[in-house]
Amino acid sequence: MPIPTVLDCDPGHDDAIAILLAAGAPEIDLRAITTVAANQTLDKVTLNARRICSAAGISVPIARGCARPLVRTLHVAGDIHGESGMDGPAFGAISVDVVEDHAIDVMHRNMPATLVATGALTNVAMYLQRYGTASVREIVLMGGSTERGNTTPYAEFNIYVDPEAAQIVFDSGVPITMIGLNVTHQALVTPAVVARLNEIGPLGRICGDLMTFFAATYREVFGFEAPPLHDPVAVAQVIDPTLVTCVEAFVGIETVGTLTRGATVVDLHGRLGREPNARVAVGLDVDRFFDRVIDAVAQLT
Amino acid sequence: MPIPTVLDCDPGHDDAIAILLAAGAPEIDLRAITTVAANQTLDKVTLNARRICSAAGISVPIARGCARPLVRTLHVAGDIHGESGMDGPAFGAISVDVVEDHAIDVMHRNMPATLVATGALTNVAMYLQRYGTASVREIVLMGGSTERGNTTPYAEFNIYVDPEAAQIVFDSGVPITMIGLNVTHQALVTPAVVARLNEIGPLGRICGDLMTFFAATYREVFGFEAPPLHDPVAVAQVIDPTLVTCVEAFVGIETVGTLTRGATVVDLHGRLGREPNARVAVGLDVDRFFDRVIDAVAQLT
Amino acid sequence: MPIPTVLDCDPGHDDAIAILLAAGAPEIDLRAITTVAANQTLDKVTLNARRICSAAGISVPIARGCARPLVRTLHVAGDIHGESGMDGPAFGAISVDVVEDHAIDVMHRNMPATLVATGALTNVAMYLQRYGTASVREIVLMGGSTERGNTTPYAEFNIYVDPEAAQIVFDSGVPITMIGLNVTHQALVTPAVVARLNEIGPLGRICGDLMTFFAATYREVFGFEAPPLHDPVAVAQVIDPTLVTCVEAFVGIETVGTLTRGATVVDLHGRLGREPNARVAVGLDVDRFFDRVIDAVAQLT
Amino acid sequence: MPIPTVLDCDPGHDDAIAILLAAGAPEIDLRAITTVAANQTLDKVTLNARRICSAAGISVPIARGCARPLVRTLHVAGDIHGESGMDGPAFGAISVDVVEDHAIDVMHRNMPATLVATGALTNVAMYLQRYGTASVREIVLMGGSTERGNTTPYAEFNIYVDPEAAQIVFDSGVPITMIGLNVTHQALVTPAVVARLNEIGPLGRICGDLMTFFAATYREVFGFEAPPLHDPVAVAQVIDPTLVTCVEAFVGIETVGTLTRGATVVDLHGRLGREPNARVAVGLDVDRFFDRVIDAVAQLT
Repeated sequence: MPIPTVLDCDPGHDDAIAILLAAGAPEIDLRAITTVAANQTLDKVTLNARRICSAAGISVPIARGCARPLVRTLHVAGDIHGESGMDGPAFGAISVDVVEDHAIDVMHRNMPATLVATGALTNVAMYLQRYGTASVREIVLMGGSTERGNTTPYAEFNIYVDPEAAQIVFDSGVPITMIGLNVTHQALVTPAVVARLNEIGPLGRICGDLMTFFAATYREVFGFEAPPLHDPVAVAQVIDPTLVTCVEAFVGIETVGTLTRGATVVDLHGRLGREPNARVAVGLDVDRFFDRVIDAVAQLT
Repeated sequence: MPIPTVLDCDPGHDDAIAILLAAGAPEIDLRAITTVAANQTLDKVTLNARRICSAAGISVPIARGCARPLVRTLHVAGDIHGESGMDGPAFGAISVDVVEDHAIDVMHRNMPATLVATGALTNVAMYLQRYGTASVREIVLMGGSTERGNTTPYAEFNIYVDPEAAQIVFDSGVPITMIGLNVTHQALVTPAVVARLNEIGPLGRICGDLMTFFAATYREVFGFEAPPLHDPVAVAQVIDPTLVTCVEAFVGIETVGTLTRGATVVDLHGRLGREPNARVAVGLDVDRFFDRVIDAVAQLT
Repeated sequence: MPIPTVLDCDPGHDDAIAILLAAGAPEIDLRAITTVAANQTLDKVTLNARRICSAAGISVPIARGCARPLVRTLHVAGDIHGESGMDGPAFGAISVDVVEDHAIDVMHRNMPATLVATGALTNVAMYLQRYGTASVREIVLMGGSTERGNTTPYAEFNIYVDPEAAQIVFDSGVPITMIGLNVTHQALVTPAVVARLNEIGPLGRICGDLMTFFAATYREVFGFEAPPLHDPVAVAQVIDPTLVTCVEAFVGIETVGTLTRGATVVDLHGRLGREPNARVAVGLDVDRFFDRVIDAVAQLT
Repeated sequence: MPIPTVLDCDPGHDDAIAILLAAGAPEIDLRAITTVAANQTLDKVTLNARRICSAAGISVPIARGCARPLVRTLHVAGDIHGESGMDGPAFGAISVDVVEDHAIDVMHRNMPATLVATGALTNVAMYLQRYGTASVREIVLMGGSTERGNTTPYAEFNIYVDPEAAQIVFDSGVPITMIGLNVTHQALVTPAVVARLNEIGPLGRICGDLMTFFAATYREVFGFEAPPLHDPVAVAQVIDPTLVTCVEAFVGIETVGTLTRGATVVDLHGRLGREPNARVAVGLDVDRFFDRVIDAVAQLT
């Protein structure tokens, strides 16, 4: 039976592909898409969710969530995702609207479900504080790293944007799977992958255009030869857990450090003497992962 | 016209008197009472709200809010308020129940209104993040200090319990009046005040019994000769702003310090170069304040 | 027998009076004056030490110490002490020079002794790390506060300038007496005191001119009616411990807080559960204190 | 002409090899060995320095330095280096003593020189604060990491032990080369290397015994197949800079973070907008490195 899933995201180039993967994979019953400010402002990422759903004919409810992090000032990633948050493709007319309710209320209505979070964890933290932890089956999140970060040397963007929310989530006791940069940096969208996307049809070409823009900013900012498809790895882990190798570990969130704010301190060698609170991705079956992405886009076409 | 007011509290001996003052003063239109974990657990403080409302014949909606601070572990004040959170009096049968909705939804339904907060600021912060700041007329809160604290040398209890919530509130842009220990420590419930309460009748005697217990813990823990009636001062400021002298100042919340967590850094001399974000109480008309408290209890009898 | 004493200071208007008090009081055997960057740069405060010693005919060795705090960037108090660090009087020719050795080596050579510290604690911390704690009889320091600070709402200047040094000192196990703002703000140099100084003769008039300048900046920055004579209170406590009332308490130094850096967290009510590590001044016999200051200046004339 | 060098260390298995490499390499004029508490207490590491120098016939002055970090409590690495700090070999009679002077005074006497630091940076920070930065040609230190740490997920041992000292050093403006775990974890002492050491003679066998013990603790604590020869890489960089590939980068020291204390935040991608303050090792010519180690031990035999 497909897994009831709510996808909380901030599209975002790789979030857009994550939406397609979640909507196109038969293993997932996508109940709702909720949006959160991070890659861009809430207005922009919500518009982007509507754009990609319109382009792909996805009709699940879309709900707006938090417009800013719990405590911090919003820090967006315009250098990576462009002014719109999803620069690159030409999108057609928008055919889907948002529901009236707030993201956390829509999450609540669709529980019990798996929560896949690919943006800042503000909505998820708000949900847990407002509705409690009991109804969430698990949280699979793209965020953090066991190694270096991207926004700062030791902090990954999603966690950096709202570290207090991340701490609430990791302290919640809900089963958590963390998909960090150490794994998503293996999911590189090579020209061969782009070619496969472009062959699928109009939706595939939108994906190809997204990836072409994403490739350019990753090359410029980080010197990457090909851009990493972060967020879809979190969805893939729900679709087929064998795609991602995980270990149990304690993950602490640095909320105090002046140079390390938002670092995910993953205690792989048990140095801190704390009980594991998450499953942490350490490996990815890259070829099978991209097959699933391609299949999902084809399925939606 | 009476001022529409929601009272967010954690009864608590002085919260109980604050409820009576808000319900008994003609200047206030008390729309709802919401509860938050702080002086004791959410279950206990909610029960206490029902107890005092039952005893006083107050029938406004009571709604449960957050059971724990945003990020921190709950720290209660059993040493001050006892095991029940409101030890001392013998309460009769409980005749009022809680509504089903969450505190923040009940707050929302009653806006625009003044929000008086006499506990940790968790509910208020959640409200502002979920519903935005536009509908709140002002927030009058008991918390913090311009001088020393009580829970630690520089932190007052309500702010110490949830400093991140306090930071959200003080950063929100909503008009804020802060009633801190520097002023509430002038509102000492002397034996003369207790005698006046006891003369009023059964409800007055409950107040007297509350204050007798409160006097004992304040004497033991802090060496005070008489206990300070913190929370009603916030309500009094709404009833009659001339009771409390205020100055405009920047108030920062220390969330990072290891020994100063929860300190309210009130920049009375403009040393930090920041714009004022609050009106900060610096004086109290003690005699007129107690007259209003006595009048309100008498009014409810 | 006079108490062997090394005075570590950063003159500074009130440091200058502290030097005179230490040199002029028969109870003190002033072995050396050492200087540290704080009120102004090391060059300036060292020059000022030479100026006041020249004016007063004091011939104890003067040694230069640290030019900057251990970890932080130097923050001087030009707004209080002026461009020279000791603006106001016209000083005559300088007749005393500095010794070649570093402050910490000069301290070492004069131990066992009482160390009176009236500036940032950089030299003292360096001494303790380099030479150990065994030879220091006690440290009497002007710094910190049990109440509000002056440089920021909760931090006093000397501790704010080098909080890590302060932490080293308070953690050292050496007997410490802390003379904070809560007491020195009682030592107000009224016009009557200035008049008494001016009557003494040329040295008294220099003191009067120092205090006149000091009065102007304290009026402008803090709105004080008369300036507080901070540093001499530390010397006075050595001269006659009955001048200053003290209590034992744990004093922690906040080195991490973003808004509270350099706060002295004085646990007067035992809320932190830590062992006392200092005697903390809580009262001052103001009249007798000023008598001793006047006597010392007269003695040197 | 050989490079005048002072080696500040805390032997320690790999420090011992670093001493041999510095003493045995013709490119280095080893002027003094100074000791600092870190891998073990100051008494133990100083004894160990005397032991290895006695065994190798090294007669440079050995001077004791700081017995504890500037601000923190000493944290030793008994789990890695054993009770003595250099467990494993049987050492013979000790034939060299320590000089009377303190490490920082001995450093001063030997300047200008290159300072190689392979322990906590306490002595180096004390030297810079006491004697200034002008006379130090450069500091080459083993410490930190561009990736994960070893003592905690993001902190390497030497920096973790005294992060404030590290901050002083990295802020000093002295030319700094940082040899971190990212490079030293390539310098694995394989059985083949141990065999080469054992063939050299008695001193080689002592080295072999050191490495055999070190291999056991690294296997147990970190699951390494062979132990990394951290400290000698710093010496090797002085001997022949072509052995180590470096890049210029800003390195910040996290002194505030609760989970990241002592992290070296190496800004390889310029995300923090700060000027570079160090050359950071990113590559090692492993084979040539071990050749130099073997040659040096053979040279001393």
